[in-house]
Amino acid sequence: MTKKAKASETVCPVARSTALIGDRWTILIIRELFSGCTRFDDIQAQTDATAQMLAARLKQLEADGLVERRAYSERPLRYEYVLTEMGRAFYPVISAYRAWGETWCKSPDEPQAVHSFHRKCGAEIGLDGICPVCKELVVRSDMDSRPGPEWTEERRLRQEAHKEQIRQRTQKAASSG
Amino acid sequence: MTKKAKASETVCPVARSTALIGDRWTILIIRELFSGCTRFDDIQAQTDATAQMLAARLKQLEADGLVERRAYSERPLRYEYVLTEMGRAFYPVISAYRAWGETWCKSPDEPQAVHSFHRKCGAEIGLDGICPVCKELVVRSDMDSRPGPEWTEERRLRQEAHKEQIRQRTQKAASSG
Repeated sequence: MTKKAKASETVCPVARSTALIGDRWTILIIRELFSGCTRFDDIQAQTDATAQMLAARLKQLEADGLVERRAYSERPLRYEYVLTEMGRAFYPVISAYRAWGETWCKSPDEPQAVHSFHRKCGAEIGLDGICPVCKELVVRSDMDSRPGPEWTEERRLRQEAHKEQIRQRTQKAASSG
Repeated sequence: MTKKAKASETVCPVARSTALIGDRWTILIIRELFSGCTRFDDIQAQTDATAQMLAARLKQLEADGLVERRAYSERPLRYEYVLTEMGRAFYPVISAYRAWGETWCKSPDEPQAVHSFHRKCGAEIGLDGICPVCKELVVRSDMDSRPGPEWTEERRLRQEAHKEQIRQRTQKAASSG
């Protein structure tokens, strides 16, 4: 029996949801889609997933209704991956992982990766998702998120390293071809 | 390089936290510990994990500081597994998975597995964790959670099936011994 067929035998929503998004790579892919990184190569650069792993997971996310593939270029035909309403609704899980990770998995001298601000009042939203000024839980569509300088730099370096890898692979293929 | 060593190279709290709790089995084990199911056999019955998988994950959770092993019986020596402060702080992730699973991974005719009530006012807390009467985000220590009848029955059947499995295994071992 598949993991999903087994999962449908239970009324537990945690078992049901983790049958769809219950591995680290999938969570990191969803993180990227939320950050606006929607193209295959860019997602690969930021997650360190192999091309096979990434392709399989994107295909599964599409089949499960969390992700939609959209052509962003006709010639050559190129696709980007966009979260559906079901995928966007997963944001609180990412946000909860983020809060727990910032608090329990990093040392105090490490900078916070992303800062989120309440669009209505401009205040920085706490890791619990609550605006300290308006005292309300802020939904994602009401916030602006900005990566801190360290996270921006880390992402730039990943992007560069990935480009260099592709360049070397292309060169090698050309010289042996 | 191990997954965790690699994870420490990033400031991303999602990558850091999912290096610790980023697979389905671990999430289901944590769900059980939150529900008060703390003994090896009982956790195995409710998660369908093999003994090896469960032992490996509990050991890892202990090494990572999320779980503590406590003796509940001296003769024979038997342990139960209890969430540490770090482990208990993971509750918002479980809660977010639960909300998303109830909303997006179940059909409308399926009953909600668990109902949570605000201790202060008695109102049922929404899936977003907010008390509809007090309009506040309720932390776990301020709520009472009760499994619905379907989830109670499902858990009872799992427990029975697991006991029967153990009984058959013991009988087989005795007859071949």
